[in-house]
Amino acid sequence: MRARELGLAWGDLPPGARNAITDVPGVSVGHATRIEGDSIRTGVTAILPHGGNIFREKLPAAVHVVNGFGKSAGLMQVEELGEIETPILLTNTFGVPACAEALIRHAIAAEPRIGRGTSTVNPVVMECNDGHLNDIQALAVRPCDAEAAIAAAAPEMESGAIGAGTGMSCYGLKGGIGTASRRLSIEEEDFHLGALVLANFGRPGDLRLPDGRRIDPRAEAPPERGSVIVVLATDVPLEGRQLRRIAARGGAGIAWTGSFWGHGSGDIALAFSTAHRLPHEPGGAFLPPRRVLAENRIDLLFRAAAEATAEAVMDALAAAGPMRGFAGHSRGALRDLLSNP
Amino acid sequence: MRARELGLAWGDLPPGARNAITDVPGVSVGHATRIEGDSIRTGVTAILPHGGNIFREKLPAAVHVVNGFGKSAGLMQVEELGEIETPILLTNTFGVPACAEALIRHAIAAEPRIGRGTSTVNPVVMECNDGHLNDIQALAVRPCDAEAAIAAAAPEMESGAIGAGTGMSCYGLKGGIGTASRRLSIEEEDFHLGALVLANFGRPGDLRLPDGRRIDPRAEAPPERGSVIVVLATDVPLEGRQLRRIAARGGAGIAWTGSFWGHGSGDIALAFSTAHRLPHEPGGAFLPPRRVLAENRIDLLFRAAAEATAEAVMDALAAAGPMRGFAGHSRGALRDLLSNP
Amino acid sequence: MRARELGLAWGDLPPGARNAITDVPGVSVGHATRIEGDSIRTGVTAILPHGGNIFREKLPAAVHVVNGFGKSAGLMQVEELGEIETPILLTNTFGVPACAEALIRHAIAAEPRIGRGTSTVNPVVMECNDGHLNDIQALAVRPCDAEAAIAAAAPEMESGAIGAGTGMSCYGLKGGIGTASRRLSIEEEDFHLGALVLANFGRPGDLRLPDGRRIDPRAEAPPERGSVIVVLATDVPLEGRQLRRIAARGGAGIAWTGSFWGHGSGDIALAFSTAHRLPHEPGGAFLPPRRVLAENRIDLLFRAAAEATAEAVMDALAAAGPMRGFAGHSRGALRDLLSNP
Amino acid sequence: MRARELGLAWGDLPPGARNAITDVPGVSVGHATRIEGDSIRTGVTAILPHGGNIFREKLPAAVHVVNGFGKSAGLMQVEELGEIETPILLTNTFGVPACAEALIRHAIAAEPRIGRGTSTVNPVVMECNDGHLNDIQALAVRPCDAEAAIAAAAPEMESGAIGAGTGMSCYGLKGGIGTASRRLSIEEEDFHLGALVLANFGRPGDLRLPDGRRIDPRAEAPPERGSVIVVLATDVPLEGRQLRRIAARGGAGIAWTGSFWGHGSGDIALAFSTAHRLPHEPGGAFLPPRRVLAENRIDLLFRAAAEATAEAVMDALAAAGPMRGFAGHSRGALRDLLSNP
Repeated sequence: MRARELGLAWGDLPPGARNAITDVPGVSVGHATRIEGDSIRTGVTAILPHGGNIFREKLPAAVHVVNGFGKSAGLMQVEELGEIETPILLTNTFGVPACAEALIRHAIAAEPRIGRGTSTVNPVVMECNDGHLNDIQALAVRPCDAEAAIAAAAPEMESGAIGAGTGMSCYGLKGGIGTASRRLSIEEEDFHLGALVLANFGRPGDLRLPDGRRIDPRAEAPPERGSVIVVLATDVPLEGRQLRRIAARGGAGIAWTGSFWGHGSGDIALAFSTAHRLPHEPGGAFLPPRRVLAENRIDLLFRAAAEATAEAVMDALAAAGPMRGFAGHSRGALRDLLSNP
Repeated sequence: MRARELGLAWGDLPPGARNAITDVPGVSVGHATRIEGDSIRTGVTAILPHGGNIFREKLPAAVHVVNGFGKSAGLMQVEELGEIETPILLTNTFGVPACAEALIRHAIAAEPRIGRGTSTVNPVVMECNDGHLNDIQALAVRPCDAEAAIAAAAPEMESGAIGAGTGMSCYGLKGGIGTASRRLSIEEEDFHLGALVLANFGRPGDLRLPDGRRIDPRAEAPPERGSVIVVLATDVPLEGRQLRRIAARGGAGIAWTGSFWGHGSGDIALAFSTAHRLPHEPGGAFLPPRRVLAENRIDLLFRAAAEATAEAVMDALAAAGPMRGFAGHSRGALRDLLSNP
Repeated sequence: MRARELGLAWGDLPPGARNAITDVPGVSVGHATRIEGDSIRTGVTAILPHGGNIFREKLPAAVHVVNGFGKSAGLMQVEELGEIETPILLTNTFGVPACAEALIRHAIAAEPRIGRGTSTVNPVVMECNDGHLNDIQALAVRPCDAEAAIAAAAPEMESGAIGAGTGMSCYGLKGGIGTASRRLSIEEEDFHLGALVLANFGRPGDLRLPDGRRIDPRAEAPPERGSVIVVLATDVPLEGRQLRRIAARGGAGIAWTGSFWGHGSGDIALAFSTAHRLPHEPGGAFLPPRRVLAENRIDLLFRAAAEATAEAVMDALAAAGPMRGFAGHSRGALRDLLSNP
Repeated sequence: MRARELGLAWGDLPPGARNAITDVPGVSVGHATRIEGDSIRTGVTAILPHGGNIFREKLPAAVHVVNGFGKSAGLMQVEELGEIETPILLTNTFGVPACAEALIRHAIAAEPRIGRGTSTVNPVVMECNDGHLNDIQALAVRPCDAEAAIAAAAPEMESGAIGAGTGMSCYGLKGGIGTASRRLSIEEEDFHLGALVLANFGRPGDLRLPDGRRIDPRAEAPPERGSVIVVLATDVPLEGRQLRRIAARGGAGIAWTGSFWGHGSGDIALAFSTAHRLPHEPGGAFLPPRRVLAENRIDLLFRAAAEATAEAVMDALAAAGPMRGFAGHSRGALRDLLSNP
């Protein structure tokens, strides 16, 4: 079930065909889910920014840290160089090292000169703490899960309690992976901006739906140790500084759903553009001439980023079914709450 | 008319006695309003963090830049040193130099060693562009307005189209100065956090009230060249890094009201704490021992900052009457729209 | 007298024809000097990034704050938008408001729609505290000085105790304005990078010359309340993120001369590129395609920025003669110290 | 052989008894070195900030990113919360995941509530690329190396080609681990500031010794893919904002040795203070009162940080013998060059 099936569309701009980050041409998403016994509820989600070798053909990218209580890997170099050079992996907090090592080996397999004839590679792995439903101490995520998620990537994608979203909680309800997109028309040319969130944040009772309703699941409310990861993709041509500004609007979308960005929540947004590729070894001293969006048109992308992020949170809540996991903890589904208020 | 009189309270925490930034003990606010002929609609608002000599007894402070399309003065040094040493002045964009010079002269008058026997002084002036209702090219704000606003500072304060808020617009309606506060109980001790906003932001149609209603004034909607300034004060003992985190939650409060932080809007938050004063010339090499809030209690202040900021925006909209100004431009009042929808 | 005449060249890259920031085509520099009676020793220096209307045709730019104990104006917006839209003025700390207001009026005179039919303007004014030799409390710099400096701008420029550099001190010696440039060959095309510094920093005894000699002027050593402003210009095509990285290397150049970036010193670098102009009102939604330097060639610019900055400091020290000023304070000249060690 | 035995002391402040980061009471350092066959030359170095459980008793800390072309883990949370909660591990770029996972398991072993009854843990791992002398693709560093380095930690420590420094290069010479300290007297009380560097940066020919000599090893000079990590420890009581300012002075120390902070070099500094511990679970809402250094005394720590960093680089070069490694690559020792110029 998607957000719009529950009446949870957000904002005014039209969605893309899938209403998913994969409406941005070339972007694909894959999941690897680990559910074992009573206590393992976790996984990995992979976002492939394009179908080629991302190390050889990097993409402009930027990061915005809404609240830095988090353990994501690779963000410092994205900030410095304004580019990504691996798939983006999402997982649980203690799965970051396994996923980072998997990305290193994956990149070397595709480009054997890495670390020998050329530079090393910067794995980007982002995380939330699924420790309420998952026994995070088990370190259940292994490099093979990262490989599986990458291998599963496709333009058709699923939301909800799947992949990295398997064990996540959101506003005291079952959270997980959500996505949404906006179709943008710029000088009669079609573009898209899509959001994918790993939604694991928010205090019970703080959730606000698009129509203003506040939802209180009367759930267990331990101190927030959640987080939310927002990944924004677009095919509008942009430079790194502009992408940083757009990433920041992911924070507005999160706030729209009722959050004040809690202390214990690592709220991070990463944005990339697929419009131009940055060759690892440029042919000359200058990159070939390329167009860039005029800054005075950027509000369209700001609005799209905030809308798609807020609706992606709704999507995670709409798609996730109820779950019982580690230590007998459980989370209910928003859809059940809405049908039986 | 205040926000709560229009039914526009925001959030769950209780307000202070005045529901104003001046509920924080020692904080006072003054306005100087300039309305002249058909085209001058502007002014200055002064926030005095305490009643003493602020240069000699500085306060811990921090800044968060939500969107840096703005011309505020003095923020870089606040970021580096984590302290303020002058009153905080708010005015229109082109009034910043006059106000900055007034603060310099004001500080020298109170401490003649400035720039001679001791360091210089860092004037903090924050601004929005009131150019829709005010002929900003007239540079109508002069140093005497800054002096007048400082001299008028008192614990009782007014909201609405007054002082720096005189000519401001918000979501296509008449904006201006708004304020709100939250009462905090920490280990049975009473504290306050208050917000004052200079609200001059938001596209017509984007405004959301606390109950979720969207308000469309069907107003002229030029490209956003607004801004919003958020000043947060508290008497909870905090260090600069914590104040920076609290200032950031002003951005969440702004987003709650419907904004995605538009490109052309300089959205800036500054937070300070009155709990401990930092002497200009400490008696020794170490500051005297002082308590600081434990980080795991900071969510209470985050929530208070977001709530007070959002309600302060409501307050600016509730308090401001309709106005006609420069070039025949006009802005309606929210209260009129709500009573005659 | 220039740095190289004293044997104080720094680094390996060849200088431009003037060994000045004005070797970058289109860049011009002008000074207005105020020396009055025994106690006024101050002024304004203007850097014009190109000969046209800078508001209508902005330039990519970026800022790096080495140590933010300073009162420069306009930097926040440069960081957000990655562009400058006025000349860059340098002056003393308390001259910033007068210079900012002069830039506002100057921009309005050239573009009467500012603040009415279009956005406002962001004046960039950077400063150091010349309070040792100048009676900074007199606020001697007035808007007419800013206008005079702008009007005097030319490709031929002077270094030393002139313009904003009039009353500055550096490592206990007479400081002021210094400049240097480096000629860059990229794929057989000629480019330049130039630095202009306002040198007012450094403890007596810490100065290191290019050959490693430490210079101790045995001067009065009050707590450092200096500062250094570094402006870097280049005609290499760069985006804002790259310019930020280049600006940071101004900090390395300052360190090479012996500084550890003292607490009381506002050490700020701003870099801009003249290669492409950014129209205030672009013709369409996209900027025309333009080339940008490949990141893996940027070390050449990093080295040039550090070398030119360090040599510009040497140039300020070489060009400045001895001076007596406020309260009978005086500073000796490096050239006298080197000829009579 | 230490830096001072080669005549390579830097600056004016007196060194501590060991002239090492372990002069700061409670700080200990351990190495695990991996040299295998012709091509493995790598390892791990552990810095233990105090002898207790660092997760339960955290320390104030801060990060300064000089150049963010690097893959260090854990820095974002240090920036947000101003504290460290694990030992600091240094290793090669591709050893980061193994070391991060080892730190997670190490923390859980000491505090079994991590990720279950309390929050997760933020492993801090910093890295350089030793790919010139080490076959970095082999991912030779394993979690057991991290454990071994932690177990080996002691107040007596070694410099040179050991631990994480085993395969590192610096200015075209053999680099590695270096350390230095400064003794500080503040109001007749004794304190220390110590630096430990992982030196793997600098172009051949750029090295400058304390007396100004430039050293050109006429070595292979591939594009800089090095990095330098600077860890600063002190027992002076400081808050996070002050530690960030001190960390930045590591960049000045690096520049003093001749570097302009090359594009490909991840130059990162982390500073922590041992003066006060931050309990994971404070007893109440406020931290107990504690003294903090007055900001106007901070120049002493800035100077100490720059001096100790620069001398620690000298120490790495002085202590490292010549080495042959991966693909037949080799690096000579500075001490051999100085004795046979």
